[in-house]
Amino acid sequence: MTKTRITELLEQKRYNYLYEQLNEMNAVDIAEIMDELPSESSVRVFRLLSKDLAAEVFANLPSDKQEFLIGCLSDAELERVTADMFIDDTVELLSEMPATIVKRILRVADPADRRIINELLNYPENSAGSIMTTEFMDLREHMTVEEAIEKIRREGIDKETIYNCYILDSGRVLKGVITVKDLLLAPLGTVVGDIMETAIISVHTLSDKESAVMKMKKYGLMTLPVVDSENRLVGIITIDDAVDIIVSESNEDISLLSAVSPSEEPYLKTSVRRHALNRIPWLILLMFTSIVTGLIIAKYEEAFTALPLLVSFLPMLMDTGGNSGAQASALVIRGLATGDLTVRDYLKVLWKEFRISILCSIALAVVNGIRILVQFGDIRIALIVSATLSCTVVAAKIIGCSLPMLAKRLGLDPALISSPFITTLVDTFAVFLYFNIAIAVMGNV
Amino acid sequence: MTKTRITELLEQKRYNYLYEQLNEMNAVDIAEIMDELPSESSVRVFRLLSKDLAAEVFANLPSDKQEFLIGCLSDAELERVTADMFIDDTVELLSEMPATIVKRILRVADPADRRIINELLNYPENSAGSIMTTEFMDLREHMTVEEAIEKIRREGIDKETIYNCYILDSGRVLKGVITVKDLLLAPLGTVVGDIMETAIISVHTLSDKESAVMKMKKYGLMTLPVVDSENRLVGIITIDDAVDIIVSESNEDISLLSAVSPSEEPYLKTSVRRHALNRIPWLILLMFTSIVTGLIIAKYEEAFTALPLLVSFLPMLMDTGGNSGAQASALVIRGLATGDLTVRDYLKVLWKEFRISILCSIALAVVNGIRILVQFGDIRIALIVSATLSCTVVAAKIIGCSLPMLAKRLGLDPALISSPFITTLVDTFAVFLYFNIAIAVMGNV
Repeated sequence: MTKTRITELLEQKRYNYLYEQLNEMNAVDIAEIMDELPSESSVRVFRLLSKDLAAEVFANLPSDKQEFLIGCLSDAELERVTADMFIDDTVELLSEMPATIVKRILRVADPADRRIINELLNYPENSAGSIMTTEFMDLREHMTVEEAIEKIRREGIDKETIYNCYILDSGRVLKGVITVKDLLLAPLGTVVGDIMETAIISVHTLSDKESAVMKMKKYGLMTLPVVDSENRLVGIITIDDAVDIIVSESNEDISLLSAVSPSEEPYLKTSVRRHALNRIPWLILLMFTSIVTGLIIAKYEEAFTALPLLVSFLPMLMDTGGNSGAQASALVIRGLATGDLTVRDYLKVLWKEFRISILCSIALAVVNGIRILVQFGDIRIALIVSATLSCTVVAAKIIGCSLPMLAKRLGLDPALISSPFITTLVDTFAVFLYFNIAIAVMGNV
Repeated sequence: MTKTRITELLEQKRYNYLYEQLNEMNAVDIAEIMDELPSESSVRVFRLLSKDLAAEVFANLPSDKQEFLIGCLSDAELERVTADMFIDDTVELLSEMPATIVKRILRVADPADRRIINELLNYPENSAGSIMTTEFMDLREHMTVEEAIEKIRREGIDKETIYNCYILDSGRVLKGVITVKDLLLAPLGTVVGDIMETAIISVHTLSDKESAVMKMKKYGLMTLPVVDSENRLVGIITIDDAVDIIVSESNEDISLLSAVSPSEEPYLKTSVRRHALNRIPWLILLMFTSIVTGLIIAKYEEAFTALPLLVSFLPMLMDTGGNSGAQASALVIRGLATGDLTVRDYLKVLWKEFRISILCSIALAVVNGIRILVQFGDIRIALIVSATLSCTVVAAKIIGCSLPMLAKRLGLDPALISSPFITTLVDTFAVFLYFNIAIAVMGNV
């Protein structure tokens, strides 16, 4: 059903028919339509959803709509919705709500849930603990496959996923993992401990969430166990959350590489004011860095008033320098994010970038030298520009691969620090070198 | 076990012990170590793996190592490895191997597999069909839960995942989907048709693979059914492949945004020559576009020799223009990639960027105007620079959000076309406007 059709049915008060239709739809689609409906209609639609569906739709709404809806619900209604949400969705919700709503939700939650939610809320932002769910399926080593399946039948309804079941000892220490597929394919009498996988990939609660999800990608896992320092299983990260994190971390990297502070909300949901605030500080910062380059140029006024042609090569030299640096830094930043590179690879990367920069600078110097010779027929200008270009490309690649590594080493986000610094450093280097080579070659111009 | 330990055990010919140790390791880790071992040792390690593990390790090796290994294996050994691989892994392997090896693998494959592999190889690159697997679990509507579980027990071993089971009619038309969790939680006598989900999210075989995986993210799916034009189920996309595609598409966008042709291999696995070839054409293209800006500057020689100070503001004006454009284009490109934006949103985006650009240009013009007044005490220069800056920022945002949309509309990759065009257009605009405003304000300088 479309938004228009739903509005029609609401106007005609055909609630029974609408109820039937809505409850056959996908929760994600309902959430999308509710987000577009006027507030009052969206509340009416929400009240028409069955209990299970309501919880799922609610979890998929953007936070502004969630906040509005909570304001319209009675405590009893709120309790029904949140009781059916998975713990990790509730924690995500609470982390985005104002304090009064957090209190209200915690008040209506059942005491056991409340304790778990409070614990999860205490994990540091960006830690594996902050994105895990505690609703996993746990088994014991001595169980038979039949007993295990029986336990899943009994308790599975409250678990977010039963695809991977975790085998714990009496102290909740993680001993093994088994997929529900392996359980179903094994003879009923088999002992779980005999067929479980013991080479377990896990992360610590305080591990970085991005490295946790990259581990899931590397090993192709549907769930990743999160353990404490005693190797006790405290939660699992599910693949649907991992996918969301992978996409939002990529969005963040792309934003930062393009000098925009990352936004949690999609483009169209972000206000003009918010968009502007995400961009203006970067533009001002970068503006001041390019002022530095301008000041250096001003120092060589004598050189370029004597030979005005020199000025016309400035954009090319600076752009090429910036582009060469950006190429290296983007690949290094991305390599660090996906785990393909670590800070320990620095010397390998440096040596590689050095050789790449030699190839690039030869190609660019030759192409550019020929073009200047053809266009101006002046071998000295060709030499000055090509020599500056070659050195700038090499310097840009070295700076471009080093700064993100340095940032990572210092515990900063590599994508955050690199772009403005690289541009300034490379531009300053290029302009300074250019005029000095020019003065040296042309004599006292 | 580490690479060093494995090398030691190989040298000491302690094959039995090594066999035991290897077969307790994770396939991904073994593949990683094999990739670092000398070729001859890696073959010896590979021959020590049990049949199942060997197939899994093989699927995780980089393609150069796979090719080398195939060269060392007898037909019988090759058959054993490929027979145990999932169809989608085999198809991925074949798409990367030279023709002689493709022939050899197809020759040893069993005839039914060979037919399916050939069909899958014929789907266009980047289509949903090219990344799906045909090994899914199918059920019938009239089956009871007990019969369904019985069928899973019997056939599940050959399926890549049994998490989602698909309900087909006698013509293989997709009627519903049910998770193994729902099956396990339902009473054994329940009829599958009564509890299956009928609001099915699916894609066509020829749909774009990126939009297919973004659908999986949106709806939080573990598997996505791929259907033909008659809605017959032909395959499924699994979440582990979806995660790989999401990461590699993000890598591709980040590469292109930074003017590097994307590489399939990780940074350190890509040769210096390949790295250079991925970068040089872009650098040359961008070099020529900035030459255009240089030529325009050269036309205003009279203006800047009369007032050399004008030159020192050029880097700032061009950089700020480029940065403003890059901010808008990166967000739009990313929005298009993740599905947050479509070409139909163009007018909304344009209007938003226009308002954002007004806020940005006011902020930048004020900050910059004050800085020039303080530094040079010349209100005319402040006016010239700030006016140029304001107009450039507005133009840059409009160009920056429009070009990716235009590229998408024309069926091109938005990330491919935008960066060089935006820079040239904005730079040209800025330089042209700057000198004309300067001449107008300063009179016949």
